Amino acid sequence: MSRPKIVILGAGYGGLMTAKGLAKELNYNEAEITLVNQNSYHYFTTELHKPAAGTSHHDHARVSISSIINKRKVNFIQDRVTSIDIEKKTVHLDQHDPLAYDYLVVGLGSAPETFGIEGLLENAFFIRSINSVRMIREHMEYMFSRYQTEKKEELITIVVGGAGFTGIEYVGELVDRMPELCREYDIPLEKVRIVNIEAAPTVLPGFDQELVDYAVKYLESKGVEFKISTPIEKCTGESVIVKGGEEIRASTVVWTGGVRGNRLIEEAGIENMRGRVKVDQYLRAPGHDNIFVIGDSSLVINEEINRPYPPTAQISTQQGQYLGRSLVATLRGNELKTFQFDNKGTIASLGKKEAIGIVWGKKYYGWTASWLKRATDLRWLFLLGGVSLLLRKGRL
Amino acid sequence: MSRPKIVILGAGYGGLMTAKGLAKELNYNEAEITLVNQNSYHYFTTELHKPAAGTSHHDHARVSISSIINKRKVNFIQDRVTSIDIEKKTVHLDQHDPLAYDYLVVGLGSAPETFGIEGLLENAFFIRSINSVRMIREHMEYMFSRYQTEKKEELITIVVGGAGFTGIEYVGELVDRMPELCREYDIPLEKVRIVNIEAAPTVLPGFDQELVDYAVKYLESKGVEFKISTPIEKCTGESVIVKGGEEIRASTVVWTGGVRGNRLIEEAGIENMRGRVKVDQYLRAPGHDNIFVIGDSSLVINEEINRPYPPTAQISTQQGQYLGRSLVATLRGNELKTFQFDNKGTIASLGKKEAIGIVWGKKYYGWTASWLKRATDLRWLFLLGGVSLLLRKGRL
Repeated sequence: MSRPKIVILGAGYGGLMTAKGLAKELNYNEAEITLVNQNSYHYFTTELHKPAAGTSHHDHARVSISSIINKRKVNFIQDRVTSIDIEKKTVHLDQHDPLAYDYLVVGLGSAPETFGIEGLLENAFFIRSINSVRMIREHMEYMFSRYQTEKKEELITIVVGGAGFTGIEYVGELVDRMPELCREYDIPLEKVRIVNIEAAPTVLPGFDQELVDYAVKYLESKGVEFKISTPIEKCTGESVIVKGGEEIRASTVVWTGGVRGNRLIEEAGIENMRGRVKVDQYLRAPGHDNIFVIGDSSLVINEEINRPYPPTAQISTQQGQYLGRSLVATLRGNELKTFQFDNKGTIASLGKKEAIGIVWGKKYYGWTASWLKRATDLRWLFLLGGVSLLLRKGRL
Repeated sequence: MSRPKIVILGAGYGGLMTAKGLAKELNYNEAEITLVNQNSYHYFTTELHKPAAGTSHHDHARVSISSIINKRKVNFIQDRVTSIDIEKKTVHLDQHDPLAYDYLVVGLGSAPETFGIEGLLENAFFIRSINSVRMIREHMEYMFSRYQTEKKEELITIVVGGAGFTGIEYVGELVDRMPELCREYDIPLEKVRIVNIEAAPTVLPGFDQELVDYAVKYLESKGVEFKISTPIEKCTGESVIVKGGEEIRASTVVWTGGVRGNRLIEEAGIENMRGRVKVDQYLRAPGHDNIFVIGDSSLVINEEINRPYPPTAQISTQQGQYLGRSLVATLRGNELKTFQFDNKGTIASLGKKEAIGIVWGKKYYGWTASWLKRATDLRWLFLLGGVSLLLRKGRL
């Protein structure tokens, strides 16, 4: 009697919550659960802007997967997925034998969306993984370390492309980091330039204007230069060139301007829009009752405005929690509920002590918002590993 | 009644000791003492291999000049010397008015000697200043941070050109640093390559063979690859090419193969050999009774073997101490003693816990040598700033 095989691709917010939900609910004989992830660790995408700026160590933004899953119930494979064969119900891996599945959960995350901007993919950095953010931090520090010898202004100029949530949060951390970085390399703080460039006519497009104004005023008071309604047209590696031809020389260019879905989904032949799958109310891919897509690779429509919810850790987590329960119901032949996103709100940090946000429909800024932000980070650690993980990560 | 003007160029070991000696001995009305240095701080050349590897912070290898000189007696100017006019007895500075002198002390240090090796000056790093060593550290860390993304072996290969004292000491620190660096960037330690390349037929040419063997055996046990009798012919920025054509791919190349004297001395028209001045027994430049050259820019002949002593902090310090006294004697019309180098010995550290050396003619290695090395570092801090500086630097 063979147990149904559930394969979960990706140990992000969604994948991990699915695995944890299944491991909690199912008995040993009900299913064979396999979790595949490229790294041995899960990382907190919502905190990556801190190690990218160097305000916090990247180890604070990751946790070993084996320490937070029940290894007796979940088989963890550290490997890279190379392709998904939906005909043969098989996942191909780089270093391991192919994996057969009865149910597939795809939570493979997103990739940077560069909108075809010339040179961006080759020359810009992206806040997307532990590997990428420590590279940003080290690159920036190396550029700063060269300044006293070469005295070129671009070495201590940082261009952040995109003033959405990640862009603004990263700029907030940079502002916090600069005094220390300038001391380290004997650079006068006022010589450093942080330029945030956004194509849309406002910072944080779509967000509450009062809070946006608060954020911009705060960051400008710390020396940040905003260039809104300013599309980047080219990234050369030594500079960015914006619409109209102005060239801003900068050795460090970090692109936060958008994400798209995963290439593997496109290649698998699952119906998608730029790698993202418009899932049904049970989070299933169109036409595939046994394939679930969650997290940044999924599109869930906000019925109120008939547009997809933006990809966030919040919705991914809820999708994972939902799927952990609904897959159990599927296996047991119970009735399925539909997925409903419960939008609690959004908070953007602006460094260690400042933030803006809307929670349960109420506006917050300054210290209160900053505290709420930390509370949501703590909640995720708690969901992942309970009090013991909070203690291990030194957050209690 | 105008006081004689003494101008000291360079606040290295020699210049600082001269300034301190003069400040201690002379009364206010006896001379006007001016010390010129490019940086606001003095750095410990003998310890630069540590911050270059990242085993110690560069702030531990420097001390603010204003905190260790008597500002009522010594006028300190932070500026870069652009030229010395020996006809007009004037020193030209980058940002200040020209300085007239009656007595000039030149302690401007050395520059890397690249022996015409193609690409070395452009593509290699040099252990020569605070600015240069923190750049090496940051470059190396940036290369390591890229490894998990790019997986290129050269990113985690470090070539050290030259196996003299600086080369061997730096390699010793690298060996100490690697476990931490590999943890930081999730790199298996055994994948890192440290290659020490020396043109001469032995490591530490001219040093005691038993101690050399001890050093090589220790460093090889830590994975260091030595290539002796192997001149580097080219440094491309991505690799070094050695005689015979072998290419060693390495993103970080640090050249410790030799130093030469200062360009300013050549340009001033003082008789010199590659920027170094063969001084008389009073440390005077040939034909110039009022110009004294000390430190790496001076050549003092070891009569026993009829070859110049190698440039070291030890001889520079003794020259400065001598000059601090003999300039006082000159001003007061007293009889001058000649300079005699008292060679106490040499110790090379091999990381934190290992060293080799000869002190007062006796061989030391291992922990004892390491302890002696630290004692000599402490002695310099004590000479500079007494017990208060030792306390401030946390060495007591």
